[in-house]
Amino acid sequence: MTTTLNPKRTVAELKELRALTGDANGAQRVAWTDTWAEGRAWLKAKVAEIPGVVQEKDEAGNLWFTLKGKSRKELLIGGHMDSVPNGGWLDGCLNVLAGVEVLRRIAAEGTPPVTVRLVDWADEEGARFGRSLFGSSSVSGAMDPDEVGALKDRNGTLLRDAVAAHGVNVKTAKKAGRQIKNAAAYLELHIEQGPVLERLGLPLGPVLGTFGVERHQITFTGQAAHSGSTPMDARKDALGGVSKLHLAIREIAVKHGGVCTVGRVVTEPGIVTSVVAEATMTLDQRHLSAAKLAKMYAEARKASERIAREEKIAVAWKKIWAIQPFPFHSELIKLADASIKEICGVSHKLPSGPLHDSAEVCRAGVPTVMLFVQSLYGISHNKIEDTKEEHIEMSVAALDALATKTMAWILGVKPRG
Amino acid sequence: MTTTLNPKRTVAELKELRALTGDANGAQRVAWTDTWAEGRAWLKAKVAEIPGVVQEKDEAGNLWFTLKGKSRKELLIGGHMDSVPNGGWLDGCLNVLAGVEVLRRIAAEGTPPVTVRLVDWADEEGARFGRSLFGSSSVSGAMDPDEVGALKDRNGTLLRDAVAAHGVNVKTAKKAGRQIKNAAAYLELHIEQGPVLERLGLPLGPVLGTFGVERHQITFTGQAAHSGSTPMDARKDALGGVSKLHLAIREIAVKHGGVCTVGRVVTEPGIVTSVVAEATMTLDQRHLSAAKLAKMYAEARKASERIAREEKIAVAWKKIWAIQPFPFHSELIKLADASIKEICGVSHKLPSGPLHDSAEVCRAGVPTVMLFVQSLYGISHNKIEDTKEEHIEMSVAALDALATKTMAWILGVKPRG
Repeated sequence: MTTTLNPKRTVAELKELRALTGDANGAQRVAWTDTWAEGRAWLKAKVAEIPGVVQEKDEAGNLWFTLKGKSRKELLIGGHMDSVPNGGWLDGCLNVLAGVEVLRRIAAEGTPPVTVRLVDWADEEGARFGRSLFGSSSVSGAMDPDEVGALKDRNGTLLRDAVAAHGVNVKTAKKAGRQIKNAAAYLELHIEQGPVLERLGLPLGPVLGTFGVERHQITFTGQAAHSGSTPMDARKDALGGVSKLHLAIREIAVKHGGVCTVGRVVTEPGIVTSVVAEATMTLDQRHLSAAKLAKMYAEARKASERIAREEKIAVAWKKIWAIQPFPFHSELIKLADASIKEICGVSHKLPSGPLHDSAEVCRAGVPTVMLFVQSLYGISHNKIEDTKEEHIEMSVAALDALATKTMAWILGVKPRG
Repeated sequence: MTTTLNPKRTVAELKELRALTGDANGAQRVAWTDTWAEGRAWLKAKVAEIPGVVQEKDEAGNLWFTLKGKSRKELLIGGHMDSVPNGGWLDGCLNVLAGVEVLRRIAAEGTPPVTVRLVDWADEEGARFGRSLFGSSSVSGAMDPDEVGALKDRNGTLLRDAVAAHGVNVKTAKKAGRQIKNAAAYLELHIEQGPVLERLGLPLGPVLGTFGVERHQITFTGQAAHSGSTPMDARKDALGGVSKLHLAIREIAVKHGGVCTVGRVVTEPGIVTSVVAEATMTLDQRHLSAAKLAKMYAEARKASERIAREEKIAVAWKKIWAIQPFPFHSELIKLADASIKEICGVSHKLPSGPLHDSAEVCRAGVPTVMLFVQSLYGISHNKIEDTKEEHIEMSVAALDALATKTMAWILGVKPRG
């Protein structure tokens, strides 16, 4: 850490951005809106003050800020300026503004050993069209232009038209893939959005990777019957399937060290005087290990079939969505751990439940790691999202230390410390 | 059973009524509508053909058909012509038309030993205003004119205005209570509306009484949390309360020989990516024994509190509705059992889960019993509601036999058979 890094400036800039693009309900930088564009213009003006940094917008709408180094190999630092509607003051923009501060520090020291690039990914949240990671998945190649372009927002506007208004053509967006052809490492700082670091009383932790997800809708079908005239042993209670499976999947999650959630239950006919004829539940299962995720899914299916037999009801599964886990780079995790220990004295490795742009960069084969900084109350995507200012400052310093170590690692030099 | 009783005529009349007041979706005799009034006019015309029967409409809109007997003591036989919208062809009107056939038989034999009265109760179903048993509860005195008069249908029409259009003043409806001052016994035949007799392969059974009901809404409150970032042991999953309590109340029902139903579950925020913050469930508990019903309720409350502690969530109960059990008259149950055995050779006593006008007559202190005839598929309040014609015929014969035995019982004569 050099004397020119000023993490307090990052806190001040986060507040400046909040005043510019937030309101009483929180951050309003939803991607492909004027407020988002305003936030990005503000960012570009900030970066314009750093000497030697070249600005560029790629075919997917991502903003790149490049500081040429002695080597063509690139260190990438990323984040996203877009927010959910009524979002928090840190999610996404902390990553970017910490990157700006690191870029300032490196630029102040002259030509860096490797090229350093800060990226502001377009539409990480997917808040408007329900499709997250637009910019980073265009770069990784996972984005399907026909499918994604046809998505509609609640007013019926097509994604392809909304992005065109911001100079992006969905059909050619994947050309942005060339941006990472020299990428040697990708770093991203993010608030944890969960309770783990807060419960441990720790400011920061290196992230092991992003969870794989199995997301399904499960429907149990029994038979409607009058609540007064139908003896208990004559019932085919569809809700019995949901209640038993919900409790079973919680045990499966604990057994395998993952997380499983039933977030919604719908009952039909859903009246007080009838046994439930049809009960639908959602299931969201996540794990960092693809093998364990597969086991959790298989065990949940098996449990649902056993339960259906017990309850004399039928069960049907429908896949909503799935994604594989993206474990981060083991060497970079070590560097991240050392950087955090340098700044805070203590560190704790943890997986990421939510997805991030880093998953797409990792998918593209770039060595990747993230840093999580403690979230208060484990809450994000909400105006009460918060992190202690001293922790924000530590996170900027840790990202800076990690950037230095990673540049050395890219060049094959044994990192300091 | 005398030779003049013609149960096949009852089946034919039921079909005639169906053709007159039903459509492709089922029976449409919703109380306080023109179709209901048409059905009643048709009934009055049928009864007008029976010599010696006096017709009367009371202050609550109930129709009374009186055949004066040697004694002023009265045998009452009841039913209801009103149906739910898209209802079945038997619910309510079988009771009335079987009563018409019994009245015909008794009238044909000359002056009966006691006065025999058939009553067509007004608005048993409560389909339009959500308040069942209007006519019978006016007679029993349980009806609250201010509360009931102020009920609105889905178009905003007040019950008091809807009944006024049919000549009923809610404020004076309880004057109809005088109708039962000489009542010595009340008999009602009804389809079972449940699966018990069908499962046993039996046509008919005497009813032990109507279940008492405890109906509540239970809300568990936990905390919303991200499905990816929140470890299992850091969750306050409100749905855990519902799943565990649902399974617990089913066990409580079996333990005490009652029925308990969770018919509706609502989850908030109800999205696939969040632990459930608030889960609401309905609970409907029924038992023929007031003591056991009270125990089932107390055990469910205790279980909900234990579960809330286990899950680190809060629980709140809100009463929706409750009614005490109405056990029928033990001597009349014996007579009903004997009558059924006389007709069918075999009988099975069972409780009634649904409420009936008989509960209100029983509440008023009149010795009461019901006969249940088998329902196919246990289904009612639906156009597919059905009963085998041979069972309908048996039910008319059993009601007739029971009427004879009950008249003798009223006079203190040991009944035949």
